[in-house]
Amino acid sequence: MALSIADVKDAHGRIKPYIHCTPILHSSQLNTLLDCELLFKADNMQKVGAFKARGACNAVFSMEQDSLHRGVVTHSSGNHGAALAWAAAMRNTPCTVVMPNNAPQAKKDAVISYGATVVYCEPTMTAREGTVASLMQQSGASLVHPYDDDRIIAGQGTAALETLSQIEQPIDILMVPVGGGGLLGGSALVVKQSSGGNSTQVIGAEPEMANDAWQGYKSGVRVAKFVPNTIADGLRGTLGVRNFEIITEHVDDIFLTSEARIVEAMKLIWTRLKVVVEPSAAVPLAAIMDQPELFKGKRIAIILSGGNLDLDALPW
Amino acid sequence: MALSIADVKDAHGRIKPYIHCTPILHSSQLNTLLDCELLFKADNMQKVGAFKARGACNAVFSMEQDSLHRGVVTHSSGNHGAALAWAAAMRNTPCTVVMPNNAPQAKKDAVISYGATVVYCEPTMTAREGTVASLMQQSGASLVHPYDDDRIIAGQGTAALETLSQIEQPIDILMVPVGGGGLLGGSALVVKQSSGGNSTQVIGAEPEMANDAWQGYKSGVRVAKFVPNTIADGLRGTLGVRNFEIITEHVDDIFLTSEARIVEAMKLIWTRLKVVVEPSAAVPLAAIMDQPELFKGKRIAIILSGGNLDLDALPW
Repeated sequence: MALSIADVKDAHGRIKPYIHCTPILHSSQLNTLLDCELLFKADNMQKVGAFKARGACNAVFSMEQDSLHRGVVTHSSGNHGAALAWAAAMRNTPCTVVMPNNAPQAKKDAVISYGATVVYCEPTMTAREGTVASLMQQSGASLVHPYDDDRIIAGQGTAALETLSQIEQPIDILMVPVGGGGLLGGSALVVKQSSGGNSTQVIGAEPEMANDAWQGYKSGVRVAKFVPNTIADGLRGTLGVRNFEIITEHVDDIFLTSEARIVEAMKLIWTRLKVVVEPSAAVPLAAIMDQPELFKGKRIAIILSGGNLDLDALPW
Repeated sequence: MALSIADVKDAHGRIKPYIHCTPILHSSQLNTLLDCELLFKADNMQKVGAFKARGACNAVFSMEQDSLHRGVVTHSSGNHGAALAWAAAMRNTPCTVVMPNNAPQAKKDAVISYGATVVYCEPTMTAREGTVASLMQQSGASLVHPYDDDRIIAGQGTAALETLSQIEQPIDILMVPVGGGGLLGGSALVVKQSSGGNSTQVIGAEPEMANDAWQGYKSGVRVAKFVPNTIADGLRGTLGVRNFEIITEHVDDIFLTSEARIVEAMKLIWTRLKVVVEPSAAVPLAAIMDQPELFKGKRIAIILSGGNLDLDALPW
């Protein structure tokens, strides 16, 4: 049966005791600057510093005890790996994370700090998936895919579910970054299947340098092989099969933005909202800054996806 | 009549429509690391990025219309200046801010962006006060002192008032940075005059390189002339007369900490809480990190005083 908002609500009930209900932030100065009303869901302040805690927690707490014994495995550029390690530790299950060798040091350290085993590979989807497959064969561990998994999509959707319950008036647009499509897919399900959801647009924002979701969305054919090269390290995954289906059906548009604009938006968020966000989290604001005339006067919620990065290697 | 918690409550009623009720943040990892329970009142997310919005707003909204016409003047290493400029703009009153020439660029820019006039001086209290006195003589403007002013102390105390109302269980310690003593004085009044307040300690934290409050507190004689030299630019003021009285009466202790520890604590706050704080805001955590055995098992609230700094000149 197709995934729906009911699954997101189930996920929320399951994970609520373990995650933070993160605050909604805003800045009058930012609103004045961009001539719209921006509401930021601060999931950079989520457990493990990213919305990924939601999906990983839902997946691990959905598993039966005998699967848990054999452990879990995944591939991740960082935040999903840390999230799975964190969730697995709560259920005492062994966790192995395959990471691209170019992942930020802070993200490698986080995965290790939560007690998981890290295995490095080349930064391509083929290398990631091949390494995971051989690890599964060796250990019998279950895959918890970073995004192409119904439990993950439902879990990530809880960020949008919370956002809608936290804000008082309806929004015109919900804008989220898109990498593998877990957050965008889950968010789109929630918004479009909520009452009055058709009056809210769901828009993905993606770096030009990792535009596989945009290509697939515009052409109708999912891009399966793609080598991204963007500072937004959380968005280097390639859109998943389930994610592509949901996004094609429910998402209103995907916008692209440049590397320079992502850094500019990131610095603006740090300066105005006083929160630490990683480059991926700044992609929606960057897309708005590219074409402010399209967003003029709108009430827009943005999910700040994460806040994990090397403070010793900032892009300015 | 001596300032009391009633004045802080009046101030809160006056300024509430204009300020944010900032969130309380915590990090399980930080609690584990330091073996205590830390609750951070995020006033770095306050209007103008610092608790100083509270006092300045209270002062300006306490003024009569005919004083407002002649304008307001102050001296400030930054945040109070921005706060007064912001509050003055809401009441259409002219504002002049005397700033030490070594104030961070971000703070100078902020004051100007809120529409105030900036006059630079040497970074000593004598230079600051002399420049303000001559400006007052020229224009007839009223002084809104950054801390040695009952309206300011009452306004700053609203951060502690909110904190106590936001947290569910009593705390063992409230810890705040001390520069001129507005925040520490106001916080001490609130805690000690609340029901059950005697079971909560109020502790100030100050840089070793700006230890005038500590010297005065320990010796019983206020240090009137002092040239501080600390990265914590918000704490470069010298403890005020009214502030000294309140602190001597109500504060339980003042702890000192080093410059290196302040930077370490600041980075830890950015990394774990995902918020941008300026060095001054990290001083209480730095003092705890110096002597964790003193704080073991305690429930401690810390006011994160501000988040304004040059992102292009970080101390690491």
